[in-house]
Amino acid sequence: MNLLLLHDDDFQPDGSVRLRGRRLTHAREVLRVAEGQAVRVGRFRGRVGTGTVVSQSPSELVLSVALTEAPPPRPGIDLLLAIPRPKALKKLLPAIASIGVDRLVLLNAARVEKSYFDAKVLAPEAVADFLAQGLEQAKDTCPPEVLVRHRFKPFVEDELDVLFPREGCVRVLPHPPATRSLAPVPPSQRLLVAVGPEGGWVPFEVELLERFGFTPVSLGPRTLRTEVAVPMLLGALRAEHLGPAVSV
Amino acid sequence: MNLLLLHDDDFQPDGSVRLRGRRLTHAREVLRVAEGQAVRVGRFRGRVGTGTVVSQSPSELVLSVALTEAPPPRPGIDLLLAIPRPKALKKLLPAIASIGVDRLVLLNAARVEKSYFDAKVLAPEAVADFLAQGLEQAKDTCPPEVLVRHRFKPFVEDELDVLFPREGCVRVLPHPPATRSLAPVPPSQRLLVAVGPEGGWVPFEVELLERFGFTPVSLGPRTLRTEVAVPMLLGALRAEHLGPAVSV
Repeated sequence: MNLLLLHDDDFQPDGSVRLRGRRLTHAREVLRVAEGQAVRVGRFRGRVGTGTVVSQSPSELVLSVALTEAPPPRPGIDLLLAIPRPKALKKLLPAIASIGVDRLVLLNAARVEKSYFDAKVLAPEAVADFLAQGLEQAKDTCPPEVLVRHRFKPFVEDELDVLFPREGCVRVLPHPPATRSLAPVPPSQRLLVAVGPEGGWVPFEVELLERFGFTPVSLGPRTLRTEVAVPMLLGALRAEHLGPAVSV
Repeated sequence: MNLLLLHDDDFQPDGSVRLRGRRLTHAREVLRVAEGQAVRVGRFRGRVGTGTVVSQSPSELVLSVALTEAPPPRPGIDLLLAIPRPKALKKLLPAIASIGVDRLVLLNAARVEKSYFDAKVLAPEAVADFLAQGLEQAKDTCPPEVLVRHRFKPFVEDELDVLFPREGCVRVLPHPPATRSLAPVPPSQRLLVAVGPEGGWVPFEVELLERFGFTPVSLGPRTLRTEVAVPMLLGALRAEHLGPAVSV
């Protein structure tokens, strides 16, 4: 946790911030805060800055905060992700939030097991918790918007172009048999990547996505776990956009 | 597990292969093999191919194997990794093996906690198990060579140039304050990346690595977990080398 994430109801009428629960435990046991000490804080969906410890007890941490800076710039990435097994999703949600993905669609596909839709990690509170871990890691305050869609074809045909306007956006489909290799997408273009399930998209899905402007690319001959392939892909496609020259 | 990894002592004098333990359980419970069925196999550090189930029982699986193909091509990457916390290392070892890293040096650094050297995951058998998981995932048979080094300075000054000849190799040092952004390294050059600990390399370490030819690059303004940053970095640096045009 490189930043304490503050929510609206942590703010008191006098402007101070009071924390309990997981963030209190972290501040006391990991950061070992003392009165007067400064810690890095950020307001959920807002600015980041410094919190100074006014008082602390086993039940409460009181901070006076100065939120002076914008959160880190965003790399301009959206993701369609065939719902992975719950164990993988638990790793992917914090990773995706830490990278700064703007919108994540968790999508059904022919090779997605139906039981995954009932996984506890898909409950909105669980998703919010896993995303918060990624924000705290990356010192960010803005989580990805997460949508869950049970039907692949209606989503692609009816919603995709509305949610993700085609203009100024490159659509990429990692697909092992593709012959086109990866090349960085310039920062002036947004990036929309459609990551398939274990075993890949079926031919019908590939054809439909291609019809909707997705270019198949190959990540090479190795079958990688989704939680390894996603950061690798985003690194490969957004290399120029990750450096310090990024615009806000 | 996309491939059953076979070891020398699984091979019987008659050429058949007999499996017990974890691979037997996987074949019976996940693959649900039946007599006559073909499964993907590979001989440790050798070729890959097909195993046909001759017989199976709760105690043993007998295969007749044909090892006809080379394992997947390697992307030409070596890694120096400041020893991360054990939980992160457990995720990184399979990831690094699945990506096809050739040599991994687990290195001490000023910000590495001394207790990490005593972690169970660093025991040679544990390392071998975690690497095997990555090979089975990527259908590879050749694990990275893993070296553990307790002293940073003597390693860099005395061993580095011997283990990793400078000619034909690009040395890269991810370092957040760097101003140079990431650019793919051409496939004709090997890549050696020095990934720091949580909190980063200290100035002395950065200076020494720079003196030994490492170019600092920035992965952008976000602080990422090592298990996210490593695949992202390798994707960014090796994009051109990951596609299907890779040479063996």
